[in-house]
Amino acid sequence: MKEFFDCLKCKECGRTYPKEAQHVCEFDFGPLEATYNYHKLKKYVTRQLLESGPHSMWRYEAFLPLEESPTVGLHTGMTPLIRAHRLGKVLGVKELYIKNDAINYPSLSFKDRVVSVALSRARELNFSIVSCASTGNLANSLAANAASSGFKSYVLIPADLELAKVIGSLVYKTKVIGIRGSYDKVNRLCSEIAGKYRWAFVNVNFRPYYAEGSKTMGFEILEQMGWEIPDHTVICMASGSLLTKIDKAYREAIICGLVEDKPYAIHGAQALGCNPITAAFKKGTDLIRPVPNPSTIAKSLAIGTPADGFYAIQTIRRTGGFSEDVNDLEIIEGIKILAETEGIFAETAGGVTVGCAKKLIEKGHIPPSGKIVLCITGNGLKTADVLKDHLQPIQIIDPTIQDFDKIVAL
Amino acid sequence: MKEFFDCLKCKECGRTYPKEAQHVCEFDFGPLEATYNYHKLKKYVTRQLLESGPHSMWRYEAFLPLEESPTVGLHTGMTPLIRAHRLGKVLGVKELYIKNDAINYPSLSFKDRVVSVALSRARELNFSIVSCASTGNLANSLAANAASSGFKSYVLIPADLELAKVIGSLVYKTKVIGIRGSYDKVNRLCSEIAGKYRWAFVNVNFRPYYAEGSKTMGFEILEQMGWEIPDHTVICMASGSLLTKIDKAYREAIICGLVEDKPYAIHGAQALGCNPITAAFKKGTDLIRPVPNPSTIAKSLAIGTPADGFYAIQTIRRTGGFSEDVNDLEIIEGIKILAETEGIFAETAGGVTVGCAKKLIEKGHIPPSGKIVLCITGNGLKTADVLKDHLQPIQIIDPTIQDFDKIVAL
Ligand SMILES: Cc1ncc(COP(=O)(O)O)c(C=O)c1O
Ligand SMILES: Cc1ncc(COP(=O)(O)O)c(C=O)c1O
Ligand SMILES: [Zn+2]
Ligand SMILES: [Zn+2]
Repeated sequence: MKEFFDCLKCKECGRTYPKEAQHVCEFDFGPLEATYNYHKLKKYVTRQLLESGPHSMWRYEAFLPLEESPTVGLHTGMTPLIRAHRLGKVLGVKELYIKNDAINYPSLSFKDRVVSVALSRARELNFSIVSCASTGNLANSLAANAASSGFKSYVLIPADLELAKVIGSLVYKTKVIGIRGSYDKVNRLCSEIAGKYRWAFVNVNFRPYYAEGSKTMGFEILEQMGWEIPDHTVICMASGSLLTKIDKAYREAIICGLVEDKPYAIHGAQALGCNPITAAFKKGTDLIRPVPNPSTIAKSLAIGTPADGFYAIQTIRRTGGFSEDVNDLEIIEGIKILAETEGIFAETAGGVTVGCAKKLIEKGHIPPSGKIVLCITGNGLKTADVLKDHLQPIQIIDPTIQDFDKIVAL
Repeated sequence: MKEFFDCLKCKECGRTYPKEAQHVCEFDFGPLEATYNYHKLKKYVTRQLLESGPHSMWRYEAFLPLEESPTVGLHTGMTPLIRAHRLGKVLGVKELYIKNDAINYPSLSFKDRVVSVALSRARELNFSIVSCASTGNLANSLAANAASSGFKSYVLIPADLELAKVIGSLVYKTKVIGIRGSYDKVNRLCSEIAGKYRWAFVNVNFRPYYAEGSKTMGFEILEQMGWEIPDHTVICMASGSLLTKIDKAYREAIICGLVEDKPYAIHGAQALGCNPITAAFKKGTDLIRPVPNPSTIAKSLAIGTPADGFYAIQTIRRTGGFSEDVNDLEIIEGIKILAETEGIFAETAGGVTVGCAKKLIEKGHIPPSGKIVLCITGNGLKTADVLKDHLQPIQIIDPTIQDFDKIVAL
């Protein structure tokens, strides 16, 4: 593997750090981020080279913070980008696309991207136990990937998650630890644990590696759009990391000459019941007020103290995007219109993305022309229960043509 | 599109029929099957041509019964084939692979293959309403694909299916009709309806088109194995159609010179609670005794009167394979070892495949050497509830390092 990964660098003061299991700057507590030798990278990557890579996220490995070829998650990524004519018509826009990570490999969410990078790096740094603080999807992905690659794993989640997400972790024989309290309590506990045990916490001490994995969703969008940056990209936010990394992918693609530089807007989407980023954005500040008690059916997005919220707001502002939020009913409506028009069943987070996109279009923040991509990040079967009371009922009949005729005549 | 689809042909008497919405021979009630001009097909298809096709099942469109390019399900297929080192070790075999349709597009089962073909054909024949009799997965796939392609749809299912499968149909706004009674009653009713309404019932009057879609799972296995027929292929059976069509793909690939001819065995897998095909096989007969009241957690396989059971037995015998069955506990065990070793979460049907493979290996019907492929056909989130009482419990603690330390020390 050709390596361009340079070092970790503080996002605040720019101090550099070696490529270790570290995630905060010792001077100002700023987050560390992976940086690359763009001078060399630019000379190396071409559209053709990338297109001829494997049919997975690893065709973009030159942009990822590994020193060797990846060892975990080799089938992840390259999920379909769908031209959504029917949803576009409903929303009143001309050229709409869905980037569909609801069928990502192996665990049906975009988290498979970040976990693949983090565990590949954990192996490089000789860790044998992997762990995470999760709102559900990350736990599913960590458990699945740890199982297939032979890591011992622990996942920590709020104790009240959806049953499908709990079973979807337990089945891989990971140790699932439910914490009484919100995600933010889980996260704080994990920071403490990471200080005490030599474990690879993918979103704590391995966060600089983990987070870079999300860039692949951005690169894939560009390639699948025919190497063009979409005018509008709508992304749901929990910690805000995915949003900032899709933007980073766009910028790196510009730097490397893969796409033309042009104005583009990145829009954020949150649930009203846990909207710290959107609330700050709408207030015009970048000071994020934590949400102490999130209350939304979009549990995967229920992070009250978003680690990358500040940077997400910067990104949205810089690109001329907006940040929106939707209530639970609007989330369900979002899930339903996506399913009814495009045959894509997304989890509540996807309902947030579609619902917010609808609002952004109605309010004129996204115009009817231009290319629009909605990022669908997780599968509907993970949160199917929320729909129970919101669907037309199933009709039950005896197996006779008479009964059937009656139903059809209705 | 290059077309090689010739006509429909009775599997019993060989009489030919035009390419219409018809599925039984008028003389002997034999099932009709699509046939092709192999003479021309052979000259046209090459490994290189197929490999350069789209990253979907449609790279094999020359082997499918359409007259125009497909219009439904363009992203379906080309699911990963995984080298399963860790499961192989547990089962005591050297070279094991998993063909993983648990993440098929859009609805997470191999049924997306058959529905894509059937609905594309339904459009060619100018049908506007599509329908099916289903044990769950077919309903999910029909509903999703009908939604994205603008067909009106009705799905008929036994009324007692898993909630995730019911919601996974309703969400697409299809009309879901639950029938009081087993699948066989549903199926009989659908035959009656198909005689009365001009609807495309994908697995009744469109069955000759529908069934051919399953061949693509076989072609993909061959290509992903490096154009070699695996020595052993293990396939779970409901109607028995998938099994016969994977074999048909292998034979067509031989005819067309894509792979070398060699001995290979096709093995069948059923749930003990609904094992009409395996029971007949084990008795040494090909007379299938219907199972009037299926009782198994593998509801997707609960077909008591399997339409292609006779042909499945012929295929298994001809290739020197075996047919096995497993009880509910073995199914759950199968789901768990697959998840724990390979990070793949399969539905109950996948537990049947893995459980039967285990037995076939233990009994010596599958030797430890040789290349073995297990076909995983549906996603575990669809039947997650069966695991509820069979997983290690989640540990619930307060968010303190002291509580955590105690758990880890256990
Ligand atoms: C389905 C889904 N979408 C989006 C997100 C947002 O991720 P981020 O924390 O990077 O903002 C999450 C986070 O858990 C998620 O589970
Ligand atoms: C998950 C799954 N696997 C396998 C099968 C078997 O299909 P066939 O009827 O072709 O034997 C089914 C049928 O419904 C299914 O749902
Ligand atoms: Zn710093
Ligand atoms: Zn005949």
